[in-house]
Amino acid sequence: MKFKIIKSHSKNLARVGQIETSHGTIETPAFIVGGTKATVKALTIDQIKNLNSQAILANTYHLMLQPGAEIIQQANGLASFMGYDGPTFTDSGGFQIFSLGLAYKQNLKDMTNSQNSNHKLKFSKGLINVSDDGVEFKSHLDGTKYFMSPEKSMKIQHQIGADIHMAFDQLTTPLADQSTIEEACRRTHEWAARSLAQHQLLNHQHKKNQQPEQSLYGIVQGSRIKNLRIESAKIINSLGFDGFAIGGIFEPTEINQVLGWIMPKLTLDKPKHLLGMGAQPLDLFLGIENGIDTFDCVAPTRQARNGALYTSNGRINITNQQFKTNYDPIDKNCRCYTCLNHTQSYLNHLFKANELLAYTLSSIHNEYFVVNLVNQIRQSILNENYQDFKESFLNNYYYKQLDSIKNFI
Amino acid sequence: MKFKIIKSHSKNLARVGQIETSHGTIETPAFIVGGTKATVKALTIDQIKNLNSQAILANTYHLMLQPGAEIIQQANGLASFMGYDGPTFTDSGGFQIFSLGLAYKQNLKDMTNSQNSNHKLKFSKGLINVSDDGVEFKSHLDGTKYFMSPEKSMKIQHQIGADIHMAFDQLTTPLADQSTIEEACRRTHEWAARSLAQHQLLNHQHKKNQQPEQSLYGIVQGSRIKNLRIESAKIINSLGFDGFAIGGIFEPTEINQVLGWIMPKLTLDKPKHLLGMGAQPLDLFLGIENGIDTFDCVAPTRQARNGALYTSNGRINITNQQFKTNYDPIDKNCRCYTCLNHTQSYLNHLFKANELLAYTLSSIHNEYFVVNLVNQIRQSILNENYQDFKESFLNNYYYKQLDSIKNFI
Repeated sequence: MKFKIIKSHSKNLARVGQIETSHGTIETPAFIVGGTKATVKALTIDQIKNLNSQAILANTYHLMLQPGAEIIQQANGLASFMGYDGPTFTDSGGFQIFSLGLAYKQNLKDMTNSQNSNHKLKFSKGLINVSDDGVEFKSHLDGTKYFMSPEKSMKIQHQIGADIHMAFDQLTTPLADQSTIEEACRRTHEWAARSLAQHQLLNHQHKKNQQPEQSLYGIVQGSRIKNLRIESAKIINSLGFDGFAIGGIFEPTEINQVLGWIMPKLTLDKPKHLLGMGAQPLDLFLGIENGIDTFDCVAPTRQARNGALYTSNGRINITNQQFKTNYDPIDKNCRCYTCLNHTQSYLNHLFKANELLAYTLSSIHNEYFVVNLVNQIRQSILNENYQDFKESFLNNYYYKQLDSIKNFI
Repeated sequence: MKFKIIKSHSKNLARVGQIETSHGTIETPAFIVGGTKATVKALTIDQIKNLNSQAILANTYHLMLQPGAEIIQQANGLASFMGYDGPTFTDSGGFQIFSLGLAYKQNLKDMTNSQNSNHKLKFSKGLINVSDDGVEFKSHLDGTKYFMSPEKSMKIQHQIGADIHMAFDQLTTPLADQSTIEEACRRTHEWAARSLAQHQLLNHQHKKNQQPEQSLYGIVQGSRIKNLRIESAKIINSLGFDGFAIGGIFEPTEINQVLGWIMPKLTLDKPKHLLGMGAQPLDLFLGIENGIDTFDCVAPTRQARNGALYTSNGRINITNQQFKTNYDPIDKNCRCYTCLNHTQSYLNHLFKANELLAYTLSSIHNEYFVVNLVNQIRQSILNENYQDFKESFLNNYYYKQLDSIKNFI
């Protein structure tokens, strides 16, 4: 993987760059489409490409359980397994292992009461057992016991064969106490070093077999605690990763603060990925002006399947009665397949009739909206009108709740 | 609508023709894709077009309940509502009204024990009340009472605005007694005349408003009773419909016999549609060589959603364990989007993981298979090698059960 910065913003950390992988180049900033189980839910590869997306991120935890990493390896890796010819990422599986297990016992009630849907993580008591070696956990599908360690995550990710991998980390809840977060950070840093060592070993084998080498991002944790975040960034930065991912940010209002602590400690000319953020347009602007190059988030398609659709004037729920007789597209300014071909009335009908096409058309729209928003932000940095674009977009999108975001414009 | 016969087979009733509608020409024989609720389940319009289909058939009963005919009328009709620019059909709603009601009380047990899935029709006691005026029925969605008559079916079909409509008929079960079938036939013929009169009145209004006129097919019933089928064909033929549909055939083994009675009584150069048959390739060959021009059937997509996929060597179930490690396409000879881009292993994974893409990719494949089989049959009639094509196709497809079909080759 090679990363090149093409242009930097003069007044903030935003930059336009290129990540070169063996499956093609990603123009950054970019929104990476979520393909958790080796499929972007309800979309074909043609549909995914047609929404101007550049890469797909799949999930190590889900794929190791189903269909199994060796099935994907035999298909010549993740992209080939999906019938895709573009760049791919895998996360390490850490988030899913912990979010399905004990780590979320504490403060679960607070979390599920939160309005932010990122907090509504599943919890099953006693499913995991963490030590410095790694994590014992049970499959949420059939209860089979598995053991995951940094070394194992690397082996599995190399079997899955995406272009960009993530180090295996330990997640904490945003409401964990300081000693829990400190221990998780210490472990995350040890696991980062072990992940990198194992990754380099496997890459060495690829090189010998004349196969493309893969890249690894280290993950910065530390929750909301300034000195832990700074320490985490320094340690992860020192280890020699190809790029960095930032985990454990849950609210858009935390982005400026947390990235403000971390970013100065990370090598400027390595790519940075913000894990799981992008449910709100605001996330994307704040991430980018703090130096984030790539994003992933399954919220756009998940919301789409519930009928919650993005428009330039905010989100609407297409299942509402008012849309039954509206023969305009979801968003008159949108150039996605759905908006070019279908009305709000038709979408409303498909949702009411529980037709599968509802999920496809709404996912195309939301994913197009987010992917192209980031593409437009990239263009605005190149054109040196980022601030104008940002103000205009956010004023339109949040026009009903300008007070709550005015500090960020 | 205009119908033109291009070429007729020298030894049977098969013919190649063209149905011209205001939304384009259908080259016949043709398999009309099923779009029950104004959507071909799990497929976008682009995907439907890319499988070489020529027209879509939607369901009056379902659309009158949801979203309501007036919603579709305001969208400028069915094709426009779906975002489609090709020809469309609607059936009259008769089949669904009766299949959801009392007409199926009798012999229900025999029917649900039948292997033929066409027989597994839903039954709810007391949902309908038939008289010569029409049918009172309750919506299966919310229990709302409706009244449907030939006149009303015509008005609703003109609101929905497909190119080709069907007369409102009374269905009987294949196991109903003779007097029930006789009464249903008498009523079907009276309703046919009333359907046509109302249709002509509405078409007259369209003409005055300089809107395209719609076409109407009369429906031949009579179950398995020779003299009733012949009488039905004669009466329906005498009324001046634009074309004919044949209802009430449930088993492929009945096609030769029933069409053998009917077809000689129907005007040769009007188009003929076989209602609801096409779950088996044999249906299509037998229909075509008896003079059928168009077919509709939802079985290919319904089976697809269950993982039952057509191949040139018969049907497979892609969810079987053996396909998990098979990296070939579903059918090496198939040129559909799914077969050109995806493996059996990937399809198997999508089904096991309950991913929505499973339904899309398998529906594309099955629908392509059936549509293109009929397209190939059309070509073989033009090339004067129909019999060779038929023998070769059926010998491959049914190679495990040749004995059961050898009388039809």
